[in-house]
Amino acid sequence: MYELHFAVPMAGAVFCTLNTRHDSNMVSILLEHSEAKIIFVDHQLLDLARGALDLLEKTGTKSPMVVLISESDGSSPTGFSSSSYEYESLLENGHSGFEIRQPESEWDPISINYTSGTTSRPKGVVYSHRGAYLNTLATLFLHGIGTMPVYLWTVPMFHCNGWCLTWGMAAQGGANVCLRKVSPKDIFDSIDQHKVTHMAGAPTVLSMIVNSAVSDQKPLPHKVEIMTGGAPPPPQIFFKMEELGFGVSHLYGLTETYGPGTYCSWKPEWDSLPLNERSKMKARQGVQHLGLEDVDVKDPVTMESVPADGKTIGEIMLRGNTVMSGYLKDSKATEDAFRGGWFRSGDLAVKHSDGYIEVKDRAKDIVITGGENVCTLEVETVLYNHPAILEVAVVGRPDDLWGQTPCAFVKLREGFDVDAQDIIKFCQDRLPRYMAPRTVIFEDLPRNSTGKVQKFILREKAKALGSLFRSETQTTC
Amino acid sequence: MYELHFAVPMAGAVFCTLNTRHDSNMVSILLEHSEAKIIFVDHQLLDLARGALDLLEKTGTKSPMVVLISESDGSSPTGFSSSSYEYESLLENGHSGFEIRQPESEWDPISINYTSGTTSRPKGVVYSHRGAYLNTLATLFLHGIGTMPVYLWTVPMFHCNGWCLTWGMAAQGGANVCLRKVSPKDIFDSIDQHKVTHMAGAPTVLSMIVNSAVSDQKPLPHKVEIMTGGAPPPPQIFFKMEELGFGVSHLYGLTETYGPGTYCSWKPEWDSLPLNERSKMKARQGVQHLGLEDVDVKDPVTMESVPADGKTIGEIMLRGNTVMSGYLKDSKATEDAFRGGWFRSGDLAVKHSDGYIEVKDRAKDIVITGGENVCTLEVETVLYNHPAILEVAVVGRPDDLWGQTPCAFVKLREGFDVDAQDIIKFCQDRLPRYMAPRTVIFEDLPRNSTGKVQKFILREKAKALGSLFRSETQTTC
Repeated sequence: MYELHFAVPMAGAVFCTLNTRHDSNMVSILLEHSEAKIIFVDHQLLDLARGALDLLEKTGTKSPMVVLISESDGSSPTGFSSSSYEYESLLENGHSGFEIRQPESEWDPISINYTSGTTSRPKGVVYSHRGAYLNTLATLFLHGIGTMPVYLWTVPMFHCNGWCLTWGMAAQGGANVCLRKVSPKDIFDSIDQHKVTHMAGAPTVLSMIVNSAVSDQKPLPHKVEIMTGGAPPPPQIFFKMEELGFGVSHLYGLTETYGPGTYCSWKPEWDSLPLNERSKMKARQGVQHLGLEDVDVKDPVTMESVPADGKTIGEIMLRGNTVMSGYLKDSKATEDAFRGGWFRSGDLAVKHSDGYIEVKDRAKDIVITGGENVCTLEVETVLYNHPAILEVAVVGRPDDLWGQTPCAFVKLREGFDVDAQDIIKFCQDRLPRYMAPRTVIFEDLPRNSTGKVQKFILREKAKALGSLFRSETQTTC
Repeated sequence: MYELHFAVPMAGAVFCTLNTRHDSNMVSILLEHSEAKIIFVDHQLLDLARGALDLLEKTGTKSPMVVLISESDGSSPTGFSSSSYEYESLLENGHSGFEIRQPESEWDPISINYTSGTTSRPKGVVYSHRGAYLNTLATLFLHGIGTMPVYLWTVPMFHCNGWCLTWGMAAQGGANVCLRKVSPKDIFDSIDQHKVTHMAGAPTVLSMIVNSAVSDQKPLPHKVEIMTGGAPPPPQIFFKMEELGFGVSHLYGLTETYGPGTYCSWKPEWDSLPLNERSKMKARQGVQHLGLEDVDVKDPVTMESVPADGKTIGEIMLRGNTVMSGYLKDSKATEDAFRGGWFRSGDLAVKHSDGYIEVKDRAKDIVITGGENVCTLEVETVLYNHPAILEVAVVGRPDDLWGQTPCAFVKLREGFDVDAQDIIKFCQDRLPRYMAPRTVIFEDLPRNSTGKVQKFILREKAKALGSLFRSETQTTC
């Protein structure tokens, strides 16, 4: 996949990575939607690809040409039509004098990234050469990646082209360390063996690292810079990562912004703040990076900027070169996303007096109870301070009286035993009463293929519980 | 000047810095040529500006509006017409709500930089917003400037807008340390006081540092990265800089490439080379930076690339976003510079097998003796190894028999006394006989306002000497 990030655009084609955790059905849908001409299939994913191609055949859709990537022992996979190729053999037959096909315009597409589908059917986000170039440079800057880094791939390359660092590693002469599977042991072993300097990942990767068995851990050879995004790092995880020797930086972005779009540019004066204050600062999504023209928090109706008071909530909107060209073959969704001339992120945030933005919630994740807005992220941040809680997600539960009430889904740490009342009380002591959950459900959290909690599944579950009676509380185990 | 790098483009105007070492006559020529509407004059340069404005008046040219920058005690300069403004008062009367005037096109000009005029009358090199943005980012990368650097201004801001690092410091939240005068003591004091992390300068600045009195030197608080260009750092200076605690990086560029265009990207395997070999590697001009599309060494007639053999000489040519838009009001010179679709640097170079380029000489500095090309830079590099030589420049002396013979202008270190024969013998022992100077002249070297040796003056002097008789050698003191 790394090599193809260069080979495909240099051949004048458009590169579309597919999430390896999709099932055959989704892969067949995306192959049809993207009109892919060639599919490259790793030997680990033969069944998945075969299933997808079979589905295409059933619907009479023309299948793409297949290029198989063999196991390192060279044994060829079987079961594909004779028209398939083997990757390494194909390379051997290539022309060394092949002339690179430059894009006619820098706005030509370089890649398509299907959104992770947190809430709906994946959309094909189109990246241009120009945008990819600029976001690559900007991401190198915000992650502080100098010359000849050693990069550990804990962000999948199928996720916003690896936050553009596939290209970034080539730009800086970096070494790429790839893992077949992301496990704490493999992470620590790789850092130790290859002297990894930089890595990145959703908070779930950080959580995996800090919650790993001590026997899997190894001392770091030097400070390892890790960039996290998707959600702010919970304070406990942030502190523990620093204790382990990692430098944590926090960015914000979406597939539609080529991955990283803003970052919490750290101010030296924050170094001397108490731990909790530092963690609050670190949780801010910050300011736009050097490749993005503008980020703002705006009233989604009037398009007015919210005051920089740290309180007034608006929607994060972005514009500039590193915002997608549009959704593939979906002009309605594209128009909708760019209404008013800015890309609408769907994330709700405030703007602080220094211009730093801070996400409060996804627009659709806000719980409105008795006319009050509850930022579920704030409730979750408080709950992450509870010693027994490993993971938590808060959604709205429909209610005849209040409209909605906050409902917490909780996964406890092993060996801990607390009940719903403990957890509700914990919140009531630390938050306005209306913000505390009225319902607590103990279970594992559903996550999508990139590790994001699938709140829409939890909302369905909360809805199935029905209305909660008045001020009564109810628990389910 | 630093503030104006932002204020002028944000007002929708084009910024033209003038070399502070020009005389009134040259300033009046450039004011007329650039059609400047406003001139900002520092209190140190009042007489210079007054002289230039008087000259404009005499020729009936409309003078620009004058804005005076007062001494820090606020005392107002006098002697200008009542229509002049004082800078700080003007700022106080500004509108805080002034809306930034964005360029209509990113190709709109942002600045004009007059070339230093090594060889001819200055030409107005036009920079675009797009080019300046990209060269700023690329220069940050090649100099390894991370977040919140402390930058010491030993490169004048009137030189390629400070190699684009005026804007670069803002991009990275840097601190700017400015000097009224560049002296070794001020450099060491500033590094010590402000904990300077990065600086830059022509080899003459490095030479000034390593040749400074020990009493002016101070231990560095940490490694200070210094970027040098204009000519490769002579080996002795490079070693001594490293001994003093500086990290020296080497770049190549011209005013027409926004300053830095290529750099000697250092390979880790070179660290283990013997000192002299390391210095040879460091002297290479290297590869294009991340903002430049292409650099190549080409036959200036056929436009064919020279083979990457480290021997075949061709002309350095560049193309891409960070090459100038053109020369102001000089379409002939612009067409000439871009003949064949590439910008022709006028520098002669070879290409090594790894693609790194190495400058051999300015096209016009090559000495042709008996049909053999002598790279004067190579002869100078050998001469810099002579313990008695502080500065040296080699040019061609016309000769009836040989066409030209090499002629060395030498400035000796204080306390040393060697004669021409010593120096000629030194070269003959280390170079092919035809490359050794036949003439040695002891005197101070003439330099232009950016510190470059003015070889055209030396060529005039060598010409005035007349032809050298056959194999005889002649010396002048």
